[in-house]
Amino acid sequence: MSAADDAGPSRGAEAATAFAPASVSNLACGFDILGMALDAPGDRVTARRTGGSGVAEVEVRGDDGRLPRDPEANSAGAAVAELLEGLRRDDAGDDGRDHGPVPGIALEVRKGVPVAGGLGSSGASAVAAVVAADRVLPGRRPRARLLRCAVEGERAACGSRHADNVAPSLYGGLVLVRSAADADVVELPVPSGLAVAVIRPHAEVETREAREVLGDRVPLEDAVTQGANLGALVAGLFRGDLELVSRSLVDVIAEPKRAGLVPGYRAARDAALEGGALGANLSGSGPSIFALCRDGAGARSVGRAMREALEADAGLESDLFVSPASASGARVERVREGSE
Amino acid sequence: MSAADDAGPSRGAEAATAFAPASVSNLACGFDILGMALDAPGDRVTARRTGGSGVAEVEVRGDDGRLPRDPEANSAGAAVAELLEGLRRDDAGDDGRDHGPVPGIALEVRKGVPVAGGLGSSGASAVAAVVAADRVLPGRRPRARLLRCAVEGERAACGSRHADNVAPSLYGGLVLVRSAADADVVELPVPSGLAVAVIRPHAEVETREAREVLGDRVPLEDAVTQGANLGALVAGLFRGDLELVSRSLVDVIAEPKRAGLVPGYRAARDAALEGGALGANLSGSGPSIFALCRDGAGARSVGRAMREALEADAGLESDLFVSPASASGARVERVREGSE
Repeated sequence: MSAADDAGPSRGAEAATAFAPASVSNLACGFDILGMALDAPGDRVTARRTGGSGVAEVEVRGDDGRLPRDPEANSAGAAVAELLEGLRRDDAGDDGRDHGPVPGIALEVRKGVPVAGGLGSSGASAVAAVVAADRVLPGRRPRARLLRCAVEGERAACGSRHADNVAPSLYGGLVLVRSAADADVVELPVPSGLAVAVIRPHAEVETREAREVLGDRVPLEDAVTQGANLGALVAGLFRGDLELVSRSLVDVIAEPKRAGLVPGYRAARDAALEGGALGANLSGSGPSIFALCRDGAGARSVGRAMREALEADAGLESDLFVSPASASGARVERVREGSE
Repeated sequence: MSAADDAGPSRGAEAATAFAPASVSNLACGFDILGMALDAPGDRVTARRTGGSGVAEVEVRGDDGRLPRDPEANSAGAAVAELLEGLRRDDAGDDGRDHGPVPGIALEVRKGVPVAGGLGSSGASAVAAVVAADRVLPGRRPRARLLRCAVEGERAACGSRHADNVAPSLYGGLVLVRSAADADVVELPVPSGLAVAVIRPHAEVETREAREVLGDRVPLEDAVTQGANLGALVAGLFRGDLELVSRSLVDVIAEPKRAGLVPGYRAARDAALEGGALGANLSGSGPSIFALCRDGAGARSVGRAMREALEADAGLESDLFVSPASASGARVERVREGSE
């Protein structure tokens, strides 16, 4: 259950801290469509009411100074700005409710998700921020609305509206984005026990380069193959047919072009498949690499095999994260009620 | 249940007649991937053992002489030739069975599916032929093998291996083709009551032109949109969520380019959507137009509305077929046992 589903007072708290997990996007045949939450790492964002209005300069810790503090450029700041903007529209009479003046919000972001690692770092910050801010503002908003705001945060940070990180980070589990513009997402069933191993190589991939190598057109035949695998993957998940899931975890659009951007990627992927993974691919635009596995023990052993292969092939160390494929989404961890 | 699942004697019959239904392929976002069986019209094929070997010249009725009689160019003939070829390989010891000499087969095809109408005419003939021939040959073959043979029939008739007509015509219902080359197909659940209306305008579309207008590359963004809708459609079918099914029945790849090839198409499609259809699009490469509806009564009324709109807009008459979306697939209708 997400924070937004909790019963709670309609008057906002003084401050609230929310956690939102990292996520694997571009899940093989689900390029730009499917994302999966991890249970860790994640970002924590504390939202506090201020006497001012709008979003104050964002405090960020744990990013080595790499992220923008300007709330218009920071994904957490931009997501909450969108939330406040919506509240102001409500107050203007769109829904007939009167929440009183819209407070200002100050945000403190503590990064747990590595920046530029392909694990949905900007998305986790945006989601944690809107979940925390939702608790601080009067009233409660449905998850779909928080999702829209988080997508705006992604747009501010990355230049395009995509939801395949924020949707799983908010909802948990495995999520299909039918339309990011419409915040139309489908939570998919996760067969019991399924787990994911992710390694993050100590290397970086330029997101811009990863996007450019794709080009802007693809062979029609590849579009059909990708769609057929995605449809079959969704059917396999509903059926709990892991053989079908495995046959369908193929990416003919992004992986062939991006594989060369991550040294050691092919060796790590091959080690995962030889180790019994259902499928393996880049996470996001890399350099992280994920492997979907039948169970947690399998994921741990596949994760170790990927780390060893990456080090042997490319001399790169890496961090390993293992998580159930049905990890929970964002949640409020701490609330300080107001004294007014 | 398909003919191939029946219990039956392992010795072949003297002659058998099978029915295989028309089908709607290129089902909106399922371009080249999704197909749906109709319960009518369909083709009937009678297979007879001959004293010779291989497939004799094919007799065809009801096609106004348009289809090739040469068994290598006729979809029914080529599909059965592939079946015989497989049996010869088996006799050569691949599976250790001994079926004795492989008989020759004569085929008589009675067309019920309009030729070049976008309703899977060549596929229906190929499927009826292999189902009838399977009954005539010694032993019984699994449906997946019959499917492979029918795909070869499509290749002979159309130049490419595609399975989105033969798979639903053989299996019935709504079928997703993960890989035509591997005959890897997934039968999808059909929400209770769902029905389809199809009109066949009295006009023709050149299959070659319909293929050429597509080009061989598509924008990456369209490939993603199409895949997202297909994944969401599959999820909607499993959930029985007809709103999600309806939102997902959008084709951004073929429809925008092909709509202009069928006079009156847009008017008929709009009439279907205004009449409450969940979605409407070209069937195959046209000129037939299908509309997926919540129930049979809805499909009948939508079908009438499409016919009227087509006539008003383009002065074209059309035939109307209404069918449950869970129509049965091919079946043996008549058997004459041998006297040997």
